[in-house]
Amino acid sequence: MARPVTLFTGQWADLPIAELAGKLAAWGFDGVELACWGDHFEVDRAIADPGYVKERRALLESHGLACSAVGAHLVGQAVSDPIDDRHRAILPPEVWGDGDPEGVRGRAAERMKDTARAAAAFDVDVVNGFTGSPVWHMLYSFPPNDFDAVARGYEEFAERWGPIIDVFDAEGVRFALEVHPTEIAYDFVTTAKTLAAVDHRPGFGINLDPSHFAHQFLDAAAFAIDFADRIYHVHVKDSRRRLDGRSSILGGHLNFGEAQRGWDFVSPGHGDVDFEAFFRALNRIGYTGPLSIEWEDSGMDREWGAQDALAFVRRTDFAPSAVAFDAAMQREG
Amino acid sequence: MARPVTLFTGQWADLPIAELAGKLAAWGFDGVELACWGDHFEVDRAIADPGYVKERRALLESHGLACSAVGAHLVGQAVSDPIDDRHRAILPPEVWGDGDPEGVRGRAAERMKDTARAAAAFDVDVVNGFTGSPVWHMLYSFPPNDFDAVARGYEEFAERWGPIIDVFDAEGVRFALEVHPTEIAYDFVTTAKTLAAVDHRPGFGINLDPSHFAHQFLDAAAFAIDFADRIYHVHVKDSRRRLDGRSSILGGHLNFGEAQRGWDFVSPGHGDVDFEAFFRALNRIGYTGPLSIEWEDSGMDREWGAQDALAFVRRTDFAPSAVAFDAAMQREG
Amino acid sequence: MARPVTLFTGQWADLPIAELAGKLAAWGFDGVELACWGDHFEVDRAIADPGYVKERRALLESHGLACSAVGAHLVGQAVSDPIDDRHRAILPPEVWGDGDPEGVRGRAAERMKDTARAAAAFDVDVVNGFTGSPVWHMLYSFPPNDFDAVARGYEEFAERWGPIIDVFDAEGVRFALEVHPTEIAYDFVTTAKTLAAVDHRPGFGINLDPSHFAHQFLDAAAFAIDFADRIYHVHVKDSRRRLDGRSSILGGHLNFGEAQRGWDFVSPGHGDVDFEAFFRALNRIGYTGPLSIEWEDSGMDREWGAQDALAFVRRTDFAPSAVAFDAAMQREG
Amino acid sequence: MARPVTLFTGQWADLPIAELAGKLAAWGFDGVELACWGDHFEVDRAIADPGYVKERRALLESHGLACSAVGAHLVGQAVSDPIDDRHRAILPPEVWGDGDPEGVRGRAAERMKDTARAAAAFDVDVVNGFTGSPVWHMLYSFPPNDFDAVARGYEEFAERWGPIIDVFDAEGVRFALEVHPTEIAYDFVTTAKTLAAVDHRPGFGINLDPSHFAHQFLDAAAFAIDFADRIYHVHVKDSRRRLDGRSSILGGHLNFGEAQRGWDFVSPGHGDVDFEAFFRALNRIGYTGPLSIEWEDSGMDREWGAQDALAFVRRTDFAPSAVAFDAAMQREG
Amino acid sequence: MARPVTLFTGQWADLPIAELAGKLAAWGFDGVELACWGDHFEVDRAIADPGYVKERRALLESHGLACSAVGAHLVGQAVSDPIDDRHRAILPPEVWGDGDPEGVRGRAAERMKDTARAAAAFDVDVVNGFTGSPVWHMLYSFPPNDFDAVARGYEEFAERWGPIIDVFDAEGVRFALEVHPTEIAYDFVTTAKTLAAVDHRPGFGINLDPSHFAHQFLDAAAFAIDFADRIYHVHVKDSRRRLDGRSSILGGHLNFGEAQRGWDFVSPGHGDVDFEAFFRALNRIGYTGPLSIEWEDSGMDREWGAQDALAFVRRTDFAPSAVAFDAAMQREG
Amino acid sequence: MARPVTLFTGQWADLPIAELAGKLAAWGFDGVELACWGDHFEVDRAIADPGYVKERRALLESHGLACSAVGAHLVGQAVSDPIDDRHRAILPPEVWGDGDPEGVRGRAAERMKDTARAAAAFDVDVVNGFTGSPVWHMLYSFPPNDFDAVARGYEEFAERWGPIIDVFDAEGVRFALEVHPTEIAYDFVTTAKTLAAVDHRPGFGINLDPSHFAHQFLDAAAFAIDFADRIYHVHVKDSRRRLDGRSSILGGHLNFGEAQRGWDFVSPGHGDVDFEAFFRALNRIGYTGPLSIEWEDSGMDREWGAQDALAFVRRTDFAPSAVAFDAAMQREG
Repeated sequence: MARPVTLFTGQWADLPIAELAGKLAAWGFDGVELACWGDHFEVDRAIADPGYVKERRALLESHGLACSAVGAHLVGQAVSDPIDDRHRAILPPEVWGDGDPEGVRGRAAERMKDTARAAAAFDVDVVNGFTGSPVWHMLYSFPPNDFDAVARGYEEFAERWGPIIDVFDAEGVRFALEVHPTEIAYDFVTTAKTLAAVDHRPGFGINLDPSHFAHQFLDAAAFAIDFADRIYHVHVKDSRRRLDGRSSILGGHLNFGEAQRGWDFVSPGHGDVDFEAFFRALNRIGYTGPLSIEWEDSGMDREWGAQDALAFVRRTDFAPSAVAFDAAMQREG
Repeated sequence: MARPVTLFTGQWADLPIAELAGKLAAWGFDGVELACWGDHFEVDRAIADPGYVKERRALLESHGLACSAVGAHLVGQAVSDPIDDRHRAILPPEVWGDGDPEGVRGRAAERMKDTARAAAAFDVDVVNGFTGSPVWHMLYSFPPNDFDAVARGYEEFAERWGPIIDVFDAEGVRFALEVHPTEIAYDFVTTAKTLAAVDHRPGFGINLDPSHFAHQFLDAAAFAIDFADRIYHVHVKDSRRRLDGRSSILGGHLNFGEAQRGWDFVSPGHGDVDFEAFFRALNRIGYTGPLSIEWEDSGMDREWGAQDALAFVRRTDFAPSAVAFDAAMQREG
Repeated sequence: MARPVTLFTGQWADLPIAELAGKLAAWGFDGVELACWGDHFEVDRAIADPGYVKERRALLESHGLACSAVGAHLVGQAVSDPIDDRHRAILPPEVWGDGDPEGVRGRAAERMKDTARAAAAFDVDVVNGFTGSPVWHMLYSFPPNDFDAVARGYEEFAERWGPIIDVFDAEGVRFALEVHPTEIAYDFVTTAKTLAAVDHRPGFGINLDPSHFAHQFLDAAAFAIDFADRIYHVHVKDSRRRLDGRSSILGGHLNFGEAQRGWDFVSPGHGDVDFEAFFRALNRIGYTGPLSIEWEDSGMDREWGAQDALAFVRRTDFAPSAVAFDAAMQREG
Repeated sequence: MARPVTLFTGQWADLPIAELAGKLAAWGFDGVELACWGDHFEVDRAIADPGYVKERRALLESHGLACSAVGAHLVGQAVSDPIDDRHRAILPPEVWGDGDPEGVRGRAAERMKDTARAAAAFDVDVVNGFTGSPVWHMLYSFPPNDFDAVARGYEEFAERWGPIIDVFDAEGVRFALEVHPTEIAYDFVTTAKTLAAVDHRPGFGINLDPSHFAHQFLDAAAFAIDFADRIYHVHVKDSRRRLDGRSSILGGHLNFGEAQRGWDFVSPGHGDVDFEAFFRALNRIGYTGPLSIEWEDSGMDREWGAQDALAFVRRTDFAPSAVAFDAAMQREG
Repeated sequence: MARPVTLFTGQWADLPIAELAGKLAAWGFDGVELACWGDHFEVDRAIADPGYVKERRALLESHGLACSAVGAHLVGQAVSDPIDDRHRAILPPEVWGDGDPEGVRGRAAERMKDTARAAAAFDVDVVNGFTGSPVWHMLYSFPPNDFDAVARGYEEFAERWGPIIDVFDAEGVRFALEVHPTEIAYDFVTTAKTLAAVDHRPGFGINLDPSHFAHQFLDAAAFAIDFADRIYHVHVKDSRRRLDGRSSILGGHLNFGEAQRGWDFVSPGHGDVDFEAFFRALNRIGYTGPLSIEWEDSGMDREWGAQDALAFVRRTDFAPSAVAFDAAMQREG
Repeated sequence: MARPVTLFTGQWADLPIAELAGKLAAWGFDGVELACWGDHFEVDRAIADPGYVKERRALLESHGLACSAVGAHLVGQAVSDPIDDRHRAILPPEVWGDGDPEGVRGRAAERMKDTARAAAAFDVDVVNGFTGSPVWHMLYSFPPNDFDAVARGYEEFAERWGPIIDVFDAEGVRFALEVHPTEIAYDFVTTAKTLAAVDHRPGFGINLDPSHFAHQFLDAAAFAIDFADRIYHVHVKDSRRRLDGRSSILGGHLNFGEAQRGWDFVSPGHGDVDFEAFFRALNRIGYTGPLSIEWEDSGMDREWGAQDALAFVRRTDFAPSAVAFDAAMQREG
């Protein structure tokens, strides 16, 4: 009756999918959201080789695992970002090529179209991912922003992603942006601007991950209500603030896991996300898709944590009521 | 007995200094921190024309106003920033030149050296300002930062500012960085890194403005204690958080004063800065310099506000105790 | 060692008791608090037909379920309420009759006496219920209340309930008012007035349900301490506040479950009641009766919820200490 | 530049207006909002005798006091309320008549029409007041409300007030309901329903008094934004919560000033209203009308309090900004 | 109309009273609470020399200062304390004598009797002070307290103070213990025990100083209500908690004013005491005596602070209401 | 992978160890921390009789229980305390002797040396315990402390414990002081002083029990980080604050379990200790020793509680991460 619980495999790409699938099945997961890196879901092979997708499905099914979404965060990031050395580390060599920014962006866009095709071939109708952003670096307004330039950034984003979404539409697949700092949409205001920039076309929606809301002091449950018709997929991930007057909420150019950070990702249920309110909101909007655990906690053993997270979701996610209670208090006929 | 209260003139550069000085005197200010833009303090004239500085002093003295610091935020920003169109709007044309980034940075560095010389000529021993930052745009780590690149950014900053501080040292003037998001130092961790990068040389210190700490959930009083020997100047400015679950603490690419922002600057005493604790900390470290009101509040009339702010500081700033109270409770001889 | 956990069947009256009993037994409940509506506990049959009560007991015992209290909330409400159309919906037709207010109140009073007799026949010594209130509608004082009229309301209540409690006393059964907005007692002050109005006679006590305290910002644990000798029965129910500046704590004439309400009932453990403190208070006053779950949560599946609630109570309710700890730290003989 | 500060005279009706006016002038008030009871503003005389209004104006002007609104709360209450004994105490004898409910409501409606005429004669274009409510007594839903009956209550309200607003329109005067528990509108949801019920006609708006919001945990500043075009008048009044776990937010049928109440009215600035945020919201919506102090605090001397309240408003209300601050930071031409 | 404001001179004993009186008069104080040390109020001279008290009065009156209480904290402390070296520093040499504990306690008791006599001679009817405590050192129970020993300590206290209060009664003077850690009463529970130990005799009451309540998380306003008939005098003093996870609420054996303390005394209005609620409680119990500022703040200039404190009390203390507000809303005759 | 969970047997000394061991094994504990009182671990027998320690080990092993630490709190307390009647109740008769303070302290010191020898014989390398304190009774500074006397107290402590630690060093055993009010170290400041007083010699470290930190508002996780190299053993115990304005944080000379206390010990997970943060800190410092539950909760059945506590620790303690997560997001080779 409750929603299926899956694991996003992006942070486990060091393990072959065959090995990981065995573990997940043993722990009791219902399915996976395969990452488009490592050997988990290889876009080029999926569109070139019908046998590849058949074999992947067979592997998952042999472990009783479903798959209804894939994650293409890394390549998507390059489509509308200013490109620098950090992108080289997350892109396949053939997309990076010579690293010329416009060339990189173009090749990334083509690869995203292929990802839609690969997803269709794999019988998956949601691709989660990032978009990059032409304006993220103008986050703090000094030197003072030219706010017309911000507006132009949203237009540029829409121009770059329009043709990609055309392919998604053609393939019957939908793209779900993970709303997230560093992306074109990261809060209520920018999500509204982003959806407007693409004319609210249904091919472009949201992968809602509450962990990116907590350290912005945003209410992910309210977000689900406000953008109900564009919530195509949901991540279960948590984050925790540690604000003692010496740790900045901005992070201080510190890596995840460093002690002086003002916030950090933690295993679901160990942080500041109010999952009770979040799941109630998902009930209210009628979301019945997977709850996909994206597990990241630099202070906890990964395998202990994945199981702890699964147990947490199982005991916290419940189905909505189908009975009108007052009715039972009324006089019977 | 209390500290002198001055006004930083940067947000009043639309008024000629002669007009502004009259207002400030009438309102009861003790002095000014002159901005190096508008006609308030013109660096090129100050080093070229001994009469200019004499006349400026005379103007201030005729209104009973002291001046012990100038503010050179705008040009300083360009010294170690990646340069884009936003800088053109804040730089004098001769510093911007053709806009080639490395050229801009070089001309800005030369102008900062001149600013030290101008300050010396004007008999002022503190220049407040910004530094820019080679790494600010790597604030959020996605694509994941190469943290060695962050470390190299601090070295680049030190290389660019070293020769400038040499001139400051020669002129007997000290530079005071306003710790601030978008700058090389914006919190405890980055300030420690910044001071280390310049080998803690005394010519480089801090202009402490608590308004940039409040929305990062940082404790400006604790900062004063930790960096006591580098607090060369103090701004009095306030900011207020408005976090209702729909407004992000990040600002959402919204201009100051827009209703949906998660935080905004407000007139001193109207926001989240704990000035009582802040002034007690300044007492503890023995800071006796000016409290310079930097007034900015998009929801309040500017002239009403400057007077309200002055009254607020006068009633909140107090001198430290010179008596040991227990002593008076002891038995007399 | 811990207290027995029962379910109040009032919100399950759409199910025949035979079906419900099977479910409760399977889920692990210790017993039931039968509602006096639906087919759960029929007062008229219980006093008329000795076989009826024997059969009800047999049914419960066949499922291993105890029963030490019944709930007569609906008829009790009509005893001292101003009567309007809403009462018609909750009363048996023969009590409603022609709907003339004084007639309704009289017939309701007689039925409450019968309920005492039926409870005695069923070997149950506590009847939980509501009282109605002659003054509830004067809650907010505009037009300004005549507070003498409030005082007269308490007298009227006492006059109407006195003869009913006489019958309870005669039958060896006690009435337990569920302290609750809309009733003669709903907080500390009004409970004290209510008990005084009936001269603290032991036949009239309290069914303590903490869910009605949470949205009034009242401390149900402190209430248990203050009125320790009148706590005859305990409900386990929860409520949650959702106060975002736009939802009133008053409810805004919205039905339970509507999104804009400022508070709502939720499954035990999911709301604002501090059950740890509540159970410790019950330990302190020596309450050993049932913890009766009254389950109502418009956002959760009812059957999932009843089991979740039972598990919650089992892991939260604990017996008090029987050892003096310091003793063990003392020197042995 | 700031808004005029007036006193609502309703709680001072024991003093003749001539005496009160002298006090207010001496304390520094800018004007009055006259109550339509006591001898402050007598509706019957104002429409019958042109000399009366002239003389009232002259009296106020002799003290330098403006008047741009009158308060007709008491009679308005009777227009759509269920009538009981409490109304007799607040109505003029000729409106109460024989106390037959429908007759009282009809005479109250006529008197409200006369009030519009009297206001016009007195050259005042806002009449503040209450409306009463056919549904207030159904606040708590037990016995369970028939929510269709609630909807019909709003229709009844609209039918009763429609003809009154017709007269207001004809006279060029607007009615401003003080949103308040016991009235047809008391929070966000019910205000929206109320305005819809009268088809958003401009003759019916709001007298916004934040003290009725604080104990409901409502945000009066947000309310001003949401209903900006219907804010016709503003009261300055405060209330304070005292929730210690034993005092209910509901008030417990206790009179104002009793120690056990969970909330009470207090002099402005001494309670839970965030006036800083409230006045900023009034700036944002461009409200330039009076701030009318309605003074009520059972723990403070009335005359000390009125002066304290005036001083509080004077130092807290400020004009909005007319300067774009970033502009001054830009490069001069 | 408001209460008189005095200064307790205990922390100013380094200044001759003649000099201090001039300052207090100039600052606007209404009177003084003279300390029984320094040259402020010398008990031995007051009982020996009728001219002394006349001259003291004349000095105060020449400055327009009243005096209705004296403070005898230091000697009182020795009456029922275990005596150690710390007492030598606070006692007059003739009371300390050879330092033998029982002898010190006896001489201190005699001096307290003399203080009652001196107060009577000076026409003052309240002596504030400390009592010491036979059990304070058993505050934390390890090794585990023998709680019978605690009970015996209260008896010992009563035996030692009984004869002293006999003299107070005879002289028509009352003793007011400043409830305070290190004394026999320091919170609600111990005050109740203390008053019971002396059989609630009226000669023994309380000098209520809220600063000793704040760091215990006690509510001084509630204390005033609970012990209303024993509040004989009131101090105005404040304290502030600084709990950052590294500073203990216990103080850590650090002197007042040290940065690492978890709490410290601060000038009134700068700490955690809720003076608004406190003064309202004093209104409610009808306390009309002096508000005596005991000024101690190691981070603020003493003379700046005394004036700041006086201004704070003047603007915060108000008289209670003498009007029933609803009355004015009722229909006039 | 997680840490072993043991039970400290100090509060169970009324049960013979043979009986207790059976229970612990059945409940699932990994081991015990034996108290040096009752028949649990008898120091005199352990050094006198090699068979005794062998038999104790055999008993534990027969139940599968490990033991790596013993607790010698009671005797340790007497080493540097002022001695009074309370010590008689916690000391063996032969240590108490005639009760002459210096004699008691000397005999206690010798017994602690024996305890080191006994631990070595039992193959245990950590002895937990108390130290007593020459200065604890000077906690609140009235009469004002002579802070030189405080400093001398730390020297006295070091002189008394130095020779004891010499024996610990010789035996290869370490002493772990349980930081605790009433001991020489009870917070950050006093722990730093204590370690300095013994020259940071490795034989003297800390048994970290977070329950003594919570009611001081101290952060036990930060303490673990700051004193990482001296954390030799860890207790799992909890405490809860109940501050309602009438209960002092000081405890009010009330025994544990009394209702009016401002804080009390509770079973782990039921109080204010943030165990999630605490265990993460232990992970960060690499602590791999036992988590020893010291169970004390006067409101909960002891056997129910011990099992509840074990389950709580099992589900809350987790191993640290061994994977760099960003790594998996990087492009594979």
